[in-house]
Amino acid sequence: MEKTANATPTAKQTLIGTRVKKPDAPDKATGKTRYINDMVLPQMLIGKVLFAGRPHAKIVRIDTSAAEQLPGVHAVLTGKDATGLKFGFVRDNVALKDKVRCEHDEIAAVAAESEDIARQAVALIEVEYEDLPGVFTPEDGAREDAPLIHDNFPGNKSLAFDFQHGDVAAAEAASDFVVDNVFRPHHVTHCCMGTSCAIADFDHNGKLTIWTQTQYPYNYKMDLAPALGLHPGDIRVIQPPIGGAFGSKLDVYPYEPIAALLARKTGRPVKVIYSREEEFKASPTRQPAIIHMRTGCTRDGTLTFRSADVLLDNGAYTSWGPTIPVIMMRTVSGHYRVPAVDFKAQAIYTNNPYAGSFRGYGNVQCTYATAQQMDMLADMVDMDPLAFHLKNSQKSGEITPQKSFLRECALVECLETAAQASDYSRKRKEYAAQQDAPGRYKKGIGLASSIHNAGGAKIHKSDGIGTILKMDDYARVTVITGASEIGQGIDAVITLIVSEELGVPLEHVTLVNNDSDIAPWDVGVHASRTTFIAGNGTRRAARKAKAQILAAAEKVLGEPAETLELRGGSVVRDQCGTPIIKLDRLLRQMHFQAEPELVMVTDYYEPKSEPEGAQHMSDHSAAYSHAVHIAEITVDTLTGEIKVDKVTVAQDVGRIINRMGLEGQVEGGLAIGLGYALSENMLLDHGLLKNASFRDYKLITAPEMPPLDLHFIESDCAEGPYGAKGISELPTIVIAPAIANALYNATGVRIFNPPMSPETVARAIHERRMQTAPGKATTPSEALAV
Amino acid sequence: MEKTANATPTAKQTLIGTRVKKPDAPDKATGKTRYINDMVLPQMLIGKVLFAGRPHAKIVRIDTSAAEQLPGVHAVLTGKDATGLKFGFVRDNVALKDKVRCEHDEIAAVAAESEDIARQAVALIEVEYEDLPGVFTPEDGAREDAPLIHDNFPGNKSLAFDFQHGDVAAAEAASDFVVDNVFRPHHVTHCCMGTSCAIADFDHNGKLTIWTQTQYPYNYKMDLAPALGLHPGDIRVIQPPIGGAFGSKLDVYPYEPIAALLARKTGRPVKVIYSREEEFKASPTRQPAIIHMRTGCTRDGTLTFRSADVLLDNGAYTSWGPTIPVIMMRTVSGHYRVPAVDFKAQAIYTNNPYAGSFRGYGNVQCTYATAQQMDMLADMVDMDPLAFHLKNSQKSGEITPQKSFLRECALVECLETAAQASDYSRKRKEYAAQQDAPGRYKKGIGLASSIHNAGGAKIHKSDGIGTILKMDDYARVTVITGASEIGQGIDAVITLIVSEELGVPLEHVTLVNNDSDIAPWDVGVHASRTTFIAGNGTRRAARKAKAQILAAAEKVLGEPAETLELRGGSVVRDQCGTPIIKLDRLLRQMHFQAEPELVMVTDYYEPKSEPEGAQHMSDHSAAYSHAVHIAEITVDTLTGEIKVDKVTVAQDVGRIINRMGLEGQVEGGLAIGLGYALSENMLLDHGLLKNASFRDYKLITAPEMPPLDLHFIESDCAEGPYGAKGISELPTIVIAPAIANALYNATGVRIFNPPMSPETVARAIHERRMQTAPGKATTPSEALAV
Repeated sequence: MEKTANATPTAKQTLIGTRVKKPDAPDKATGKTRYINDMVLPQMLIGKVLFAGRPHAKIVRIDTSAAEQLPGVHAVLTGKDATGLKFGFVRDNVALKDKVRCEHDEIAAVAAESEDIARQAVALIEVEYEDLPGVFTPEDGAREDAPLIHDNFPGNKSLAFDFQHGDVAAAEAASDFVVDNVFRPHHVTHCCMGTSCAIADFDHNGKLTIWTQTQYPYNYKMDLAPALGLHPGDIRVIQPPIGGAFGSKLDVYPYEPIAALLARKTGRPVKVIYSREEEFKASPTRQPAIIHMRTGCTRDGTLTFRSADVLLDNGAYTSWGPTIPVIMMRTVSGHYRVPAVDFKAQAIYTNNPYAGSFRGYGNVQCTYATAQQMDMLADMVDMDPLAFHLKNSQKSGEITPQKSFLRECALVECLETAAQASDYSRKRKEYAAQQDAPGRYKKGIGLASSIHNAGGAKIHKSDGIGTILKMDDYARVTVITGASEIGQGIDAVITLIVSEELGVPLEHVTLVNNDSDIAPWDVGVHASRTTFIAGNGTRRAARKAKAQILAAAEKVLGEPAETLELRGGSVVRDQCGTPIIKLDRLLRQMHFQAEPELVMVTDYYEPKSEPEGAQHMSDHSAAYSHAVHIAEITVDTLTGEIKVDKVTVAQDVGRIINRMGLEGQVEGGLAIGLGYALSENMLLDHGLLKNASFRDYKLITAPEMPPLDLHFIESDCAEGPYGAKGISELPTIVIAPAIANALYNATGVRIFNPPMSPETVARAIHERRMQTAPGKATTPSEALAV
Repeated sequence: MEKTANATPTAKQTLIGTRVKKPDAPDKATGKTRYINDMVLPQMLIGKVLFAGRPHAKIVRIDTSAAEQLPGVHAVLTGKDATGLKFGFVRDNVALKDKVRCEHDEIAAVAAESEDIARQAVALIEVEYEDLPGVFTPEDGAREDAPLIHDNFPGNKSLAFDFQHGDVAAAEAASDFVVDNVFRPHHVTHCCMGTSCAIADFDHNGKLTIWTQTQYPYNYKMDLAPALGLHPGDIRVIQPPIGGAFGSKLDVYPYEPIAALLARKTGRPVKVIYSREEEFKASPTRQPAIIHMRTGCTRDGTLTFRSADVLLDNGAYTSWGPTIPVIMMRTVSGHYRVPAVDFKAQAIYTNNPYAGSFRGYGNVQCTYATAQQMDMLADMVDMDPLAFHLKNSQKSGEITPQKSFLRECALVECLETAAQASDYSRKRKEYAAQQDAPGRYKKGIGLASSIHNAGGAKIHKSDGIGTILKMDDYARVTVITGASEIGQGIDAVITLIVSEELGVPLEHVTLVNNDSDIAPWDVGVHASRTTFIAGNGTRRAARKAKAQILAAAEKVLGEPAETLELRGGSVVRDQCGTPIIKLDRLLRQMHFQAEPELVMVTDYYEPKSEPEGAQHMSDHSAAYSHAVHIAEITVDTLTGEIKVDKVTVAQDVGRIINRMGLEGQVEGGLAIGLGYALSENMLLDHGLLKNASFRDYKLITAPEMPPLDLHFIESDCAEGPYGAKGISELPTIVIAPAIANALYNATGVRIFNPPMSPETVARAIHERRMQTAPGKATTPSEALAV
């Protein structure tokens, strides 16, 4: 499984594609790491928030006097302290509310000497509400007579998106088969182990320093500034080690400006930290949607059109989350050759919790629909789904209707590799034949695939990254980079690349990437971009440093720079690898010579991608990638429980950089996808969350992870660092429909409203039995008796 | 007093020479600043040290078992835990001792959950000592039969220095007058308001992070490493705001490796912090010396030779402190034209506390001798001291015997300016005439001068500095520099220079200069070098950034870069100052254009000075400067109390950068010099400090500061930034002999053993009266009656 191929031309050994440990791993594994949650600053106060606890209401009266008089309380803030300080993607949010629009609306906040006092003070705040009728589904919100949630958003309409390509009506008329379904992906949340936390502090020049968990420090400043009436340049963002993000830290949430408002009021650092229950209620979700999807094909299995009409449950406020249709439409229009496309999406305000970004970003919801409809159509034309997929697969060099340029496309190789490794076609046939045979346990196998951007996504004016690299007299390297480590392993990738280029031990590379005043521009960790973008930036900077060093070596050694390389802490002869001079010695010579020089280089890398644009017709990523998941499951037809026996993954990764990190990202992504598919579900009753604990909200944990068979296809992306593509979102995207297709293979039922929980699956199996053999069984236990 | 002259050619306004506030001042003044002493890290333990409390002893037995068993104690270390880990300038020190050589020798150290527990644990450590005879003066230490303090330093000899130039014997023979005195400058200590403190923490890769107050982070790593058996590259130094340094943080002291050894043992962060009493006893001193100085001149007032034989009280260990003769000899040989010179210095180990670097670095002790002998000789040849000084003054372009090149020499201007401003010559005559007149209170005026390096001092292989400067899309500037802020105001200087060059508001400049993994090379804050060296580095980096911006502006605006300037946050036309485009807008255009660029530049500046060398014959600083102090005093001849009525300062500053910072440095330097002259004194009894508190050790505080009349001579140093020279040490160096000369002018007495405390002065006056009018008065009160 290890590889040492793809050696750089000059190296005797390469680290590219090997397994290197994350530099932060030992401290994290041993509890040494100081997360923001652990941080204490001198004179720090603790902030606590009073949440509304109701979905939709007017605030009639608010009395904070008792809270203010409690000894140890330094400030009590309410909506009037944030009036006009609108923030959010469409400026519909404010740190402290003057009206309630969802359960976790922040009504008041307290800063006190201790958490206990802050809690007591919150309990002393008296609020009189006048409840309003609520809206809890986007269909209800879209009704003409629906209660209006924001006065300035008529019809409760938030963001809308559309894209058309080709003649869908004609294509439909020419179709032999059409599938038409409504999928209802559900509410889930990120469940970061580190709960939301921010510490804010103003200096006497009015500059805010905020320690927070953000995964996009630069644009974060721009997003936070209006919530405080500050200039973004007056904000310094420091990112202590983060206990999970997964997209949830790609927005500003009210606790962050609340910490800052309290800090401004008190003149002291203020820390706001959520309990687990608060985290469940007040942190963002993956956006639920109602996806009405139709796909057609001809009798020979050629796709003719895809149409998607999407209604998104926006929740009470609009974060970046509701922009997910930007990615959804790329899959609808660009995954497999689809001649005609019609995509419409409308986000509707409701009184539910609202969404943030979440790993997979819309593609999770969308692929749940597309990948099942591919399976359905294959069934209708009576083709092996593998053959159906292959028939419609693009090849390298094709351009999608939205102008995604699939330079290096390994979709066919992914399909064939996964199918062969899992013996898919044989098993599928065998299991299908067993569907209606007697027996409680049924086996199934399901295939799903998707496409995702794998070289960033130019949704801002820039998708670039700045890098500063310096070396000291001991040949220790410091890389100052915009790329944030949020647990995904970018520190290991950057370290590996520097080590590869400069021939220094991994441990001799230090990263500085958690302070917006120090690190240069980057647009944050999203869109599976960081290894691609920061990897390129790091490699370019390291190569500049190497060029400087080898030029100096040429002068000192009298050998041409082209014949020299850096390996094992020395300058070596390229051909034979013989060390000539120790690197640290050379660096000191450079430093202490008559014309002294230090190695300090800067680089700005901007990928050759095009801005997304309002028309959504652009090559918005520098690379695209595919993944195929094949899930093998056993269904307990009595309880409805799905046991995942094995997942075979074939994913185009371009080129492996750090194999251990890659495997970790695929495994972690799958865990999130499995939870989404099978068990995670925010149970909302009129906007109120009923299962705000890990007892009642079921994550997939390590013991429940199925055996994985991972196959990494190296398509060698020309623009990627060493050929690599971004890899982290596809594992989350593809698994749920693979399981859904396996469930169909096992039992003949399809679940349109995930998760595929035992209850849902058992009911579906029961209903199908009622239809196929009416009267034969009326309860699951009777069904078992069949 | 304000000035706006010296405008850069293109600017309508310049900040150079104006008053700008220190960026750290508001937070420091309001108590907002978080000093290292305030810092808390999660899981942090507190370390406490058991000091020997005796000057010289064998350790017979040490029992830590009771301390180890105390609940809450995590580690107890003794000498055996530091065996072989020698550090210090001549590797004669170790973090924890196996023999006692001075009162504050560190015998054991404890890390515990709280300071209280740590104190209790220290008290539970049982040590049995066998006291040894001690050595408490360098003369005693140099005796053949003296007890040996370090086995491997025979004769108790530490460092030795010598320099000869010309034929001293011949010059002496040709002299009409020779003064020959022994000066005995005393023990004083830095009295930083922030007591010594370090926090150490190891990560699981074995890398040490140490938060400490050091003023030389890069070489500090090299100095600390052997005390821990580490490679310097495995040490990261973070410098939180420092509560005073003044040279005391230019060495490694045992509390720092002790914190690290405790951290390594416990696996947790450990903070060692000294109480005020511990600070007095365990922190470094200014090195006392016995200076036998002889100076000659001819009848017409021309200097003929200077000879100095210096015996230094090394104390128990050798820090950088005993290298002060390097600077002493520059004054002996190079201050005024001295044709023949003989300088010898020997540091002798004693069982006293040992010295560190201290602002003025040997020149304080030395100038106390040279400046009084100048005064004495002027008296002997019956010249006004001003005329005597002027007669022997160098001019621009002269080179001293040690090869100091006085490119821009303003000594004459300093002398004339100070004398004129204070009406020196008239007053001196008048006061001298009153010396023996009746009356308790006598007035005196005294002049003193010195020379000091003012462009760094190349005592390392490099005296350079690295600078990284970046700008963001809001035209906010970050400067990553090796220059440390230790309260001296370099942040204000760097900020001002960036603002001057890039035309941005001062508040838009952020400095990053407190983390050795981030900031590039610098040799630390010493030798009055930082404004000179870092000022040049900053200006060069800012000018590179400006060149990049104006080149981009040329493309965008179609106007030649040479005709453009940066002012007031805009690109302006150089001639008329008309704004053309906002700087932040231009930067965004540069960033978001087809060929994007960020402004990120690096610079390495190395001054054109020569390494000091073993022969001490080199132009070791890129600039030299002079200062003249004239002190006016009133002496209470009964109590011996000296009241300083006024100090007139004329100092060659090259060019003023930040006038407020300059004034602050001169005032602060004078306060230290006044304390040295008048009141500060470590009272040692057989090596034991008897006055370890601010009640018994008398600092000069704000209400006691005399009125100052400051005159800054701008000699326009060609190599200095905007013409500036380093300025911070001379104020401390020159004041004491100015007062001594004033005391002579007032009373006819000279004090060779400072401080000029009331007791010492009263005794000297009494003794003089006994000599000049024996029998007339035998006690001070009787003297009053005269």
